[in-house]
Amino acid sequence: MADPRFYDNSGALTLARIAEIAGARVAAASGGLSLADIASLDDAAPGQLSYCESVKFKGALERTRASAVLVAEALASAVPASSVALICAQPALGFAKIAHTLYPNAGRYWPKEKPPVHAIAPSARVGEGTVIAPNVFIGEDVEIGRDCEIAPGVVIARGVQIGHNARLGPHVSISHALIGDRFTVHGGTRIGQDGYGYIGGPEGHFKIPQLGRVIIQDDVEIGANTAIDRGALGDTIVGEGSKIDNLVQIGHNTRIGRRCIIVAQVGFSGRVTVRDHVVLGGQVGVADHLTIGQGAFVAAKSGVTRTLEGGRIYGGFPAKPVEQWRREVGALSRLAKGKRNRDERDGGKD
Amino acid sequence: MADPRFYDNSGALTLARIAEIAGARVAAASGGLSLADIASLDDAAPGQLSYCESVKFKGALERTRASAVLVAEALASAVPASSVALICAQPALGFAKIAHTLYPNAGRYWPKEKPPVHAIAPSARVGEGTVIAPNVFIGEDVEIGRDCEIAPGVVIARGVQIGHNARLGPHVSISHALIGDRFTVHGGTRIGQDGYGYIGGPEGHFKIPQLGRVIIQDDVEIGANTAIDRGALGDTIVGEGSKIDNLVQIGHNTRIGRRCIIVAQVGFSGRVTVRDHVVLGGQVGVADHLTIGQGAFVAAKSGVTRTLEGGRIYGGFPAKPVEQWRREVGALSRLAKGKRNRDERDGGKD
Amino acid sequence: MADPRFYDNSGALTLARIAEIAGARVAAASGGLSLADIASLDDAAPGQLSYCESVKFKGALERTRASAVLVAEALASAVPASSVALICAQPALGFAKIAHTLYPNAGRYWPKEKPPVHAIAPSARVGEGTVIAPNVFIGEDVEIGRDCEIAPGVVIARGVQIGHNARLGPHVSISHALIGDRFTVHGGTRIGQDGYGYIGGPEGHFKIPQLGRVIIQDDVEIGANTAIDRGALGDTIVGEGSKIDNLVQIGHNTRIGRRCIIVAQVGFSGRVTVRDHVVLGGQVGVADHLTIGQGAFVAAKSGVTRTLEGGRIYGGFPAKPVEQWRREVGALSRLAKGKRNRDERDGGKD
Repeated sequence: MADPRFYDNSGALTLARIAEIAGARVAAASGGLSLADIASLDDAAPGQLSYCESVKFKGALERTRASAVLVAEALASAVPASSVALICAQPALGFAKIAHTLYPNAGRYWPKEKPPVHAIAPSARVGEGTVIAPNVFIGEDVEIGRDCEIAPGVVIARGVQIGHNARLGPHVSISHALIGDRFTVHGGTRIGQDGYGYIGGPEGHFKIPQLGRVIIQDDVEIGANTAIDRGALGDTIVGEGSKIDNLVQIGHNTRIGRRCIIVAQVGFSGRVTVRDHVVLGGQVGVADHLTIGQGAFVAAKSGVTRTLEGGRIYGGFPAKPVEQWRREVGALSRLAKGKRNRDERDGGKD
Repeated sequence: MADPRFYDNSGALTLARIAEIAGARVAAASGGLSLADIASLDDAAPGQLSYCESVKFKGALERTRASAVLVAEALASAVPASSVALICAQPALGFAKIAHTLYPNAGRYWPKEKPPVHAIAPSARVGEGTVIAPNVFIGEDVEIGRDCEIAPGVVIARGVQIGHNARLGPHVSISHALIGDRFTVHGGTRIGQDGYGYIGGPEGHFKIPQLGRVIIQDDVEIGANTAIDRGALGDTIVGEGSKIDNLVQIGHNTRIGRRCIIVAQVGFSGRVTVRDHVVLGGQVGVADHLTIGQGAFVAAKSGVTRTLEGGRIYGGFPAKPVEQWRREVGALSRLAKGKRNRDERDGGKD
Repeated sequence: MADPRFYDNSGALTLARIAEIAGARVAAASGGLSLADIASLDDAAPGQLSYCESVKFKGALERTRASAVLVAEALASAVPASSVALICAQPALGFAKIAHTLYPNAGRYWPKEKPPVHAIAPSARVGEGTVIAPNVFIGEDVEIGRDCEIAPGVVIARGVQIGHNARLGPHVSISHALIGDRFTVHGGTRIGQDGYGYIGGPEGHFKIPQLGRVIIQDDVEIGANTAIDRGALGDTIVGEGSKIDNLVQIGHNTRIGRRCIIVAQVGFSGRVTVRDHVVLGGQVGVADHLTIGQGAFVAAKSGVTRTLEGGRIYGGFPAKPVEQWRREVGALSRLAKGKRNRDERDGGKD
């Protein structure tokens, strides 16, 4: 279930209503079943709705504990007996529509019925020794630990929790996040906003509600003007002791391990897994759903297009073991020089 | 003419005065002509001044309806009979100086005589149901529609118009912009600031006044910490239903079509045209003055250096059809491996 | 010595205390010597502590005027007679710990004993004709010249000096910086925050105190959402008349010359030297400790991995003379086409 510190559930829907909203057909009698929550196939518990978009996830579908699953006709037979199949031409779109219905405030900056009135909400709890500079906004039910510095212009939205000894630079904004101790973040960094998730269709790109969080463990430092999107379902995570530089992009549901070094302008697409002690040089890009193994070092400006084993050095685009990349750089240089030498011998004709 | 919602015209200049400021010579008697405005060769109407910097634009020069044109001696004969040639060694520099004179507030955050006094200007019009959080700044004559959410710290400058159901994240700043309905923008995004335009010379880089706007159509979503510069002359445009991710750079006068997907850290140089339904992966860079055809898909980290036809998939740097890029990646890998095999056979000598 | 406008020195430490904090051993009797400040080997004056991390810096060590040097056992013999060797397994880590002790406020947004109380500090001096918009924060002892525009939400921290005719866009934040006349900076740019410097070890990444400044000379313009880190020891510098675009990363101790053009999304690692009149295209990356020679032009998206001579055009990754890069691009294209032609002849087998 989406964390109630950040999201308001609007209450259960009958399967019939779910089917209507999602454009689905209930495959079997469901005895008036009602569901109030949603989850991925793997995470779903009884009482929750899930969906299966592709035959790739057939294994997860067969194992799911969800009480109902939005699924294409062709996969309906793989829905387990404990679950009701909701047959649907576009299961992901249907699921997104149900998510919007169950969590109507998901994309809002505040619940419609609770607009921000105070710059510092009276319900916020702030630890001893914490200093809040002028022009700061702190939303409802925020908790901030002891001896923190909150620089001018910081915005901390509803329900965020921050540990002790944090230093938040000017104009940092944080929402949908739980943050450990000794956190430092420099000016203008954005934590917890919506991830970039849409379902394409003839009527345009339909926004997938973003219902997850950002979890930042202890002793993390983040530079200036970086962006860390929250998870879609589940969390975006930055592990203990990791250091992230300026202007880094961290897509939804990316999980960064402990004591990683992420240099400026690196970009992670969504759902990347970075193990502990990884070093990524400046401007590295990492495609979605990949894993970077423990202790891997990726040279600056590389483009990571597949999962990388730990403990090795990589470079280039597509990223490969650095010695291979160096050989390629050398081979290409020699090839072009050979060509030039032949051209010069032949009078420059090509 | 520069949009009077954003720019204050200081009144007409005689041709003699224009020639003096621009360092030009009036080629023919002009009968006391005065001009109050400027435009590009193509867009100029009678009563306006234009300029022609290069023989590349000779066709446009011959067709222009401008009443006067700053032009190098060599191109003076191509100025049409309806227009007065102002002979000038550096027409672009002369034009920029006239622009500064006609629009002295172009680079200012507010007109010199109207400094901001109120956090929310009394002349701003805000629709029913719109909530404005604390610490927001709204300038003179701003119009905001119904049911919008304006998060803490947002800055909306003079004359900006925003439609209904907008969601503006923390510390967003918007100037010189007209924005449609259902607009969502996440924290720290910058819309409408000066484009990056200078004319080089022995005295340094002379700023070209930026007199255009940003137009954002309906149903656009923009991520966090993105930057969209306004047009120099004319507009920067984001088309209906397009979705732009975090940390994207959109240079002046770039025009993005409808329902495009622009992933994080993409950079557009100035004057790029992107047709509808284009997808650009993360960290793609696009050089200036290019066109990306309808439905083109450009893989992450590509560098687009020439106009791309629509309906195809591209990758690499320079960007090329993806199958060609893959062949190149493979060929280089084999070349380097062959080299290594030969090295190993030969005992590693190179 | 760290600039007292920005840093508070906590007073001298005896060599014995220094040795204790740094985990060092005093190599020779020091007669009760006390030191209150630190510097690099080259910059150190008598009365200051320095350190030598590697045999690479042996020359500088032999010449240093520091009164004491943290140094590995193996290099102790190279410490000059005027200096006391402090033998230490990890000199850089020991030095960082001393820096933390001497400058306990280095990483804070304000001295612990002086939390910000006023949005505009009474000690700030603001020149005639300067307009400060609502929601601005100006710290203690800030000096701002005449006829400046300070847009809403700007944060200027303690001790910053800005010349005349500056234009600061919304939510700009500036600390630890001295800035010349006619400075323009667009929304959300971050100037003066901590550089990205850590010393790795078994207990995690230890932060190197950042004790330098940012120096911005006259007539500089900087775009939106750019990040300029201050120096670690010494300064980050942007030279007179240089123009920097949006979303640029400038690492600590980088020195950019005069009248340079730095296009959007360029990233400089730390300690880069850029001479005058250099042009860097969009998304260029520059590795640390390199020099880019006067008048060099580096094409967009290049990756600079070694020092580049001035006066030439470079491209590619690794960046090389542009004609060589073009030959390589062409050679690879022909190689892949030849491969395809052979494949087609052979029936597509590989």
